[in-house]
Amino acid sequence: MHHASIVLFGVGGVGGALIRQIVQNRAHHATEYDLALPILAVCDRDGAVVTLDDAIDDATLLNIVDFKANKGRLANYSQGGPQHDLAAVIDIAARPHTIIVDCTATETTVPALLTALERGYRVVLANKKPLTIQQEVYDRLTRAGETADGHAPRQMTATRWETTCGAGLPVIATLNRLIASGDSVSRIAGAFSGTLGFVMTGLQQGRRFSEVVREAHQLGFTEPDPRDDLGGVDVARKALILARGLGWRIEMEQASITGLYPPEMTGLSVTAFLDALPSLDAHFQQMVDEAAAQGKVLRYVATVADGGCVVGPQTVDAASPLGQLRGADNLVEFHTRWYHPTPLVLQGRGAGVDATAAGVLSDIVELALSK
Amino acid sequence: MHHASIVLFGVGGVGGALIRQIVQNRAHHATEYDLALPILAVCDRDGAVVTLDDAIDDATLLNIVDFKANKGRLANYSQGGPQHDLAAVIDIAARPHTIIVDCTATETTVPALLTALERGYRVVLANKKPLTIQQEVYDRLTRAGETADGHAPRQMTATRWETTCGAGLPVIATLNRLIASGDSVSRIAGAFSGTLGFVMTGLQQGRRFSEVVREAHQLGFTEPDPRDDLGGVDVARKALILARGLGWRIEMEQASITGLYPPEMTGLSVTAFLDALPSLDAHFQQMVDEAAAQGKVLRYVATVADGGCVVGPQTVDAASPLGQLRGADNLVEFHTRWYHPTPLVLQGRGAGVDATAAGVLSDIVELALSK
Repeated sequence: MHHASIVLFGVGGVGGALIRQIVQNRAHHATEYDLALPILAVCDRDGAVVTLDDAIDDATLLNIVDFKANKGRLANYSQGGPQHDLAAVIDIAARPHTIIVDCTATETTVPALLTALERGYRVVLANKKPLTIQQEVYDRLTRAGETADGHAPRQMTATRWETTCGAGLPVIATLNRLIASGDSVSRIAGAFSGTLGFVMTGLQQGRRFSEVVREAHQLGFTEPDPRDDLGGVDVARKALILARGLGWRIEMEQASITGLYPPEMTGLSVTAFLDALPSLDAHFQQMVDEAAAQGKVLRYVATVADGGCVVGPQTVDAASPLGQLRGADNLVEFHTRWYHPTPLVLQGRGAGVDATAAGVLSDIVELALSK
Repeated sequence: MHHASIVLFGVGGVGGALIRQIVQNRAHHATEYDLALPILAVCDRDGAVVTLDDAIDDATLLNIVDFKANKGRLANYSQGGPQHDLAAVIDIAARPHTIIVDCTATETTVPALLTALERGYRVVLANKKPLTIQQEVYDRLTRAGETADGHAPRQMTATRWETTCGAGLPVIATLNRLIASGDSVSRIAGAFSGTLGFVMTGLQQGRRFSEVVREAHQLGFTEPDPRDDLGGVDVARKALILARGLGWRIEMEQASITGLYPPEMTGLSVTAFLDALPSLDAHFQQMVDEAAAQGKVLRYVATVADGGCVVGPQTVDAASPLGQLRGADNLVEFHTRWYHPTPLVLQGRGAGVDATAAGVLSDIVELALSK
C-alpha cells in the first residue's frame, strides 16, 4: 500500500469538501490505486489540528469540517493544545511522501510552501495567490528541483495547481501536455468567470446590464460585493497563471484588465453601486448592438497572446467556441500549431467547492502515484 | 540529465512524425525538462534498425523516415544486418528507463509489449488494437505492477494510451483525473470520427448523403474504402477503450454498432458501393427531418453508459455541445456527478499524424518524468 500523507492549509468551502471527498473515497483509493491518504494536519489562519500518530481519524476530520462550516476557528477547536504557525506544522507533521495542500486564498502560505518543497515534500495548490505574486515565487513553487548548472527543468512532478484555472477542468494538464510535445501555442482565449458568463449571456438575450447583475447578486452568483467579479482581477490571475505556464516571465501589473464598471464607481457602497448600475445600461447595449451588427457576440475574455495578458469584454465570432458558450460554464480555447484553424477546447463548470475539491484530489492522487 | 530511451514499433505516418518531432525538440526537452530521448531501435513489420550504442544518430533517423515515406521496408534499409522480431529487439536494445512506443495498427505487437512491461520497461500506445482485443490483454497492458495480493492498482504510470481516443485531445487523461477524484461518471458521449462529422454536418446543411460521402472520398477524408469509416468499428474501438477506462469489463463483441450502410452493401466493390449510395439518400433525409422536427440534430455518436457501448447515428439536442459541433473536429462530453447538468467537454482535431504524434510525445515526456 502506497501512503501519501496530507497536510491541509485552509478548511473553507474547498478544503472542507476535500476532506469529505478523501474520507468518502478511502475504499476507492485503496482498491483502485493501492493508495492511502492519511491526513496529518489541518490548519486555518488561527490554528491547527495536528496528529503525531499516523493520521487524524476520520470522525475527527468530519467534525472539523462541521465545526469550520459553522464559522469556527481551529484555535478554538483545538483549545488547550499548542498553536503552531504553518511552518511549524510542517516541522512537526510532515514525513516522507507528504503532500502540502493549500486551499486558502492568501499569499501568507508561501514561506511554508517553499520550506516544504526544499525538504522534498510535494505541493498541491488550489490557491491562486502564491502563483500570481512575483515571478520569482512562481518559479520557486513550480520548478522545485532546479539543477546545479542553472537548468530550471519543468518537472511537472513536485507541484500541481490544476484547480487555480477553471477548477476541475484539466486546463493546466492540457497546457503542460502541449508544451511537453513541443507544440507551439500562439494564443489562449478563455471565459474563466461563471458570474461574468451569466452576465454576458443575459446581455445577449437582450436584458439590461443592471438587471442581470442585480439578479446574479440576489442569486448569490457574485461575491458579496459584485465588483469583486466585475472588476476582472480574478480572471486576470488565471490568465497570468496560463501565461507563466507557457514559460513567459510576466507580472500581474503587466496584465491589461478592463472591468465592467468605471473607476468612479469604486468608492460607492455596495447598495449605492447596485443603485447606480442603470447608468451603465446604454453603454453595454451599444456594445452588444455593435457586436451583433458584425455578426459577433460580446464575451468577457481573457486572452494570453504575444507575451501579454488582456482581460475584458471582447467581441468574438458567434460561431466560435467562445461565441457559442452560454451560461456560467468556463471555456478555454488553445490555438496552437497543431490545433489550427480550430482550437483545442475545454468546457465545463469552472467553479464550485465540490468540482474544485475533486480537481485537488486528482492532483493529490497523481502526485502520490508519480513516485 | 534524465534519459528515457525509445524503442519504436511502426514508422508509418504517426511513427515518422514522432521521429521528426523528437529530433526537432531535442533542445526544447533538454532545456525545459533536462531530458534526453535517445532512440535505440526503429522497427516495422519486416525489420528493424537497432543500435548497440547510446542512440541511433539523428541523420540516420531522418533518413529512415524518408525511406519509409517512400514505401520502403526496413528489411531492405538495414540490408546485410541481422533481422529481429520485436521481442528480440527488446532483448537487444532496451535498457533501464526504456519506453516502448507502439505506432503500428496491429495486435501482433502484444507479446513484445507484455514482455517489455514484465521487465519493468514502460509503454506508450498509439495503437488501439492491443487495448480492444480480450479484456485480459487490456488488463495486463494497463495495470502492470499488479500486487501479490491480487490488487490491480490503476497505476497510471507504466503505460499511456492517450492518443488511442481523440488523438492529441487529453481524453484519457481527463477520464483518469475524474476517476482519481472519485467522481462518478454516468455517461460519456462523443463524436470520434472526423470523417463521420464531416458527413453529419453535410446532412445538416441539407446535402444528400451520397453527395457528401462521395466528396469526402474524393478529398481523401475517408479510408480508400469509405465503408471502413462508415461502418463505425473504429469509433467503437474508441468507445471500448473509454468503457474499459471506467473499469468496466467488456468485450468488443458486446458493443452495439450501427453503421451508415446496410449489410447487403458489404460485398460490393468500392466503385459499386459509391454508385449505390443514392439508394440511401431518402433514408438519411428522413432521419434528418425527423430530428429537426423535434428541434434536434443527427450526429454519429459513441455512447458509453449503463455498462455498455452504443455506436451509431443518434439525435441530440441542437443546443448541446454535440449538437453545436460542426465539421471534422472530435468532441467528448463527460457527464458526471460534479459535471451536471452541463458536461465536461473536450473538443478539437481528433486525427492527423502530427497532432497524434504530438500526443504520443506528451505521453513519452510524462512517463519519462514520472520516475
